[in-house]
Amino acid sequence: MKIGCIGLGNMGAAIAANVLHARHEVAVWNRSAEKARSLIDAGATLAANPRAAASDREIVMTMLADDAALESVLSGADGLLAGLRPGALHISMSTISVATAERIAASHGARGQHFLCAPVFGRPDAAAAAKLFIVAAGAAADLQKASPLFGSISQRVFYVGETPSAANLVKLCGNFMIASMLETFSEAYATLRKAGVDPHLFLETMNALFASPVYANYGKIIADETFQPAGFALRLGLKDMRLVLETAQECTAPMPLASHLRDRFLSAVAQGQGELDWSSVARISARAAGL
Amino acid sequence: MKIGCIGLGNMGAAIAANVLHARHEVAVWNRSAEKARSLIDAGATLAANPRAAASDREIVMTMLADDAALESVLSGADGLLAGLRPGALHISMSTISVATAERIAASHGARGQHFLCAPVFGRPDAAAAAKLFIVAAGAAADLQKASPLFGSISQRVFYVGETPSAANLVKLCGNFMIASMLETFSEAYATLRKAGVDPHLFLETMNALFASPVYANYGKIIADETFQPAGFALRLGLKDMRLVLETAQECTAPMPLASHLRDRFLSAVAQGQGELDWSSVARISARAAGL
Amino acid sequence: MKIGCIGLGNMGAAIAANVLHARHEVAVWNRSAEKARSLIDAGATLAANPRAAASDREIVMTMLADDAALESVLSGADGLLAGLRPGALHISMSTISVATAERIAASHGARGQHFLCAPVFGRPDAAAAAKLFIVAAGAAADLQKASPLFGSISQRVFYVGETPSAANLVKLCGNFMIASMLETFSEAYATLRKAGVDPHLFLETMNALFASPVYANYGKIIADETFQPAGFALRLGLKDMRLVLETAQECTAPMPLASHLRDRFLSAVAQGQGELDWSSVARISARAAGL
Amino acid sequence: MKIGCIGLGNMGAAIAANVLHARHEVAVWNRSAEKARSLIDAGATLAANPRAAASDREIVMTMLADDAALESVLSGADGLLAGLRPGALHISMSTISVATAERIAASHGARGQHFLCAPVFGRPDAAAAAKLFIVAAGAAADLQKASPLFGSISQRVFYVGETPSAANLVKLCGNFMIASMLETFSEAYATLRKAGVDPHLFLETMNALFASPVYANYGKIIADETFQPAGFALRLGLKDMRLVLETAQECTAPMPLASHLRDRFLSAVAQGQGELDWSSVARISARAAGL
Repeated sequence: MKIGCIGLGNMGAAIAANVLHARHEVAVWNRSAEKARSLIDAGATLAANPRAAASDREIVMTMLADDAALESVLSGADGLLAGLRPGALHISMSTISVATAERIAASHGARGQHFLCAPVFGRPDAAAAAKLFIVAAGAAADLQKASPLFGSISQRVFYVGETPSAANLVKLCGNFMIASMLETFSEAYATLRKAGVDPHLFLETMNALFASPVYANYGKIIADETFQPAGFALRLGLKDMRLVLETAQECTAPMPLASHLRDRFLSAVAQGQGELDWSSVARISARAAGL
Repeated sequence: MKIGCIGLGNMGAAIAANVLHARHEVAVWNRSAEKARSLIDAGATLAANPRAAASDREIVMTMLADDAALESVLSGADGLLAGLRPGALHISMSTISVATAERIAASHGARGQHFLCAPVFGRPDAAAAAKLFIVAAGAAADLQKASPLFGSISQRVFYVGETPSAANLVKLCGNFMIASMLETFSEAYATLRKAGVDPHLFLETMNALFASPVYANYGKIIADETFQPAGFALRLGLKDMRLVLETAQECTAPMPLASHLRDRFLSAVAQGQGELDWSSVARISARAAGL
Repeated sequence: MKIGCIGLGNMGAAIAANVLHARHEVAVWNRSAEKARSLIDAGATLAANPRAAASDREIVMTMLADDAALESVLSGADGLLAGLRPGALHISMSTISVATAERIAASHGARGQHFLCAPVFGRPDAAAAAKLFIVAAGAAADLQKASPLFGSISQRVFYVGETPSAANLVKLCGNFMIASMLETFSEAYATLRKAGVDPHLFLETMNALFASPVYANYGKIIADETFQPAGFALRLGLKDMRLVLETAQECTAPMPLASHLRDRFLSAVAQGQGELDWSSVARISARAAGL
Repeated sequence: MKIGCIGLGNMGAAIAANVLHARHEVAVWNRSAEKARSLIDAGATLAANPRAAASDREIVMTMLADDAALESVLSGADGLLAGLRPGALHISMSTISVATAERIAASHGARGQHFLCAPVFGRPDAAAAAKLFIVAAGAAADLQKASPLFGSISQRVFYVGETPSAANLVKLCGNFMIASMLETFSEAYATLRKAGVDPHLFLETMNALFASPVYANYGKIIADETFQPAGFALRLGLKDMRLVLETAQECTAPMPLASHLRDRFLSAVAQGQGELDWSSVARISARAAGL
């Protein structure tokens, strides 16, 4: 298929490489063109702007840092909305807010363009290994059209219904689940350390109890305090807690634990940890305990 | 070996049955004797009081509801402390506070009695299936002496050091990890339900993401709202949050997420949920969202 | 002076009446015109739209429910921005967000129009009695121009600097201080009642200790549970907690207590208390205690 | 009257001096005798132990740092319980827990001794100026007997009922009200400072709004960051939040704001602020905002 890939950060570039590897014809665009170099060497063509990256494509995938970046790529004379043919499909893989997803769905609908939300779980190494989990929502026919593409970048797809924005809510709640686990480890470790118990001993027990690779992975990162390089930057974790709280507020559902996580991440950003891995939120609990 | 088993609630009775099944000679005691009946039918002898249950035993295991129940079993003329021979071993399997564990360790030490703390992870069905996880702390020689016993009731033993009370802290922090997961599911589900997304769809994604039987189990209980019969009563969850906060305070380590969990469980008890499963804390988030 | 008054809710109508009473020439506009009747009877003229209410005025005061209402009044062909002469002054008395105030300041600046933010403290009875406190920010010359007007509606004006939006931040933080007091009373009363101590006895002590009419007033409302009619609707309190948290987030300053208050108000709205007085947040603490 | 005064810290010594000044016959005792010197110079007699300080007295007042200190003074062969005559009155002015007050009431009752709880509001300068507020509970006849004494040390007495421990709950809830105000100022100031608004400007508005000397006093201390010398040490504030939460838990009433304050004070103690004034909790919010 003729595919457009817009947004070539750590995640977007790895996804585009796998799409290319599956022998699709790929046009790429990124705000700073240099990130496209290795993809072009591997056979992709460089588009001059988002419109060009979309103009003759069946499917355009976007993977951008936040709502504002996606909206900027969509709008204007050189934007994706202007370039995408009626009947063609935009797959948004970024973690964006429910409200933004709803706005974009309406914009595409008004132009006869199709739209799937398909945010992903997985860090850049999972993206490179085509081991992502995709949470997808939108018209069933669009999901079917996207299936071969999804097959080349993920290990499994979860379909959560016909309303595209529902995928974003599921993704945001999933990040809330992970963030909560990070904070829980952080507080437990701080107390254990002050009581003279090695967090690694505790982690060994938790690995038996929860038997979860996510616990094993993050539990070790926090016990070892290896917060660089960031698999997922803390400032993005803050953004996601903000987005989940926004949606919860629109639904009139209080999430006090999410509020706590938001405040912890905000405190970490204020103390200069925005570019560290989000698991470095552990430093807040450690400092609060005088460690 | 000649073993004493004191405390025959859901957990204690299942453990005693497995010890008996491993062909040890077992004396049992429980505050209300009727709970001992099936064990006696299976070959155990009924002791008249804790002192008698301990008097000629190599090892006495206790599994009681809380610190006060354990201290009551230990003290007095008919108590365990009075009955246990010097050199014999008391294994405390209850989830008790660090401070109580330290006091009991001192009492045993003064009498030349040995003491292991060995609280367990696992619900009654895991106890019945001899699939518990044991967190043990105390003298290495005592652990070795307890090994055959532990082998007949658990799937794995974690040794966390020579200070008995450390096992209780690890256990309490583990329960804090689980309780945090319960609350996280609760808040996510409340928002998802108000947004019109079925929690079961979300859970399916989380099961792929976390790949943890604990998430799968509790995530389903909360989505299905099957809070009875209680695998672990909510009032005991409240007790454990209280104990972890007490220890954290003694160590001068704030645990704001544990404070939040304590307040949620307390609210649930105030609204009559003390005997439901602790996962019924989800009702608090649901009600707060007007569900 | 020729004055325009836009927004005639409980607060806006009382303010407009006092301006009229001070013998200014007053044009009024409100979304539903019937609220203007008594002012027209008292000598005001009814404008057809916000543009008309502003077109030949020296000063236009706006008092609207929220940011969206103010922005709607400002924009469009019939809006205040289109009607106000260069050199004329808009005084925004609503409690709006810092970001909105900054946007409006820029819009006025681009048209050579002047702008003061002047949100007020005081409930409708204080507005009627010309006993408001005004927090004002903007150019000193504009403040001077507004002084006679402020004198006819308030007991005191606080000038907090040249940046209009600073007044909104001070106002929002002030509402945060009051909301915090409401929640503090709520939690204390719940515990006292469960312990069998009459909250009125406690309040008497607090009145001696704090010697504050705000404590006396709200402490009594909460003890008596007289939450209707609302002096300040709970849904507006929720809005203000949301706005203070938004600004705090833009400044990278966590406010966990404000997060807690936001969640409590949100919970109260979810349970149908949006139109009750914001002091009815006390019901959340009462219910959580099983009262 | 023949009065005993036990506990001569900042508060206790000032109270004893005023009792002496009212021409009562005063015996004093303190753990470190040197603190009694100026009182002895002024006419008090030094007792050898608490029993002696109580043995021929009509009323004995105690003002000690915490529950443990009071219980240690009461118990043993040289203790207050052993020395006080049947019919004589013990007035406990310390801020202690409800549970401890109930235990002490029972101990006195069993010996035919009378007991009032009468904790006070006021910092050491108010104690010196005989301007304390006293919250008293116990038998009405005992209150009457204590009245002349209370008149010589306080500006007003609040009687909250016949159960002595109720006075402690009122006092603890009052300290919760003050602590909440400290935290509220702290969070507001941190945001204002990051937004470039001087906290003193904000405080001026709050002083008009709340018109409370408590706000004026603490608002200025926090804006000026003058946390030494401590009027009330932060570690004692932590103790009081712990006690109010203990009582709330016994009553099954969650107090999430009190939990938050407890965690903030605990964090402050962990960072070495235990002997600073409790208003120094503001440093936690400032640091969390990167100030």
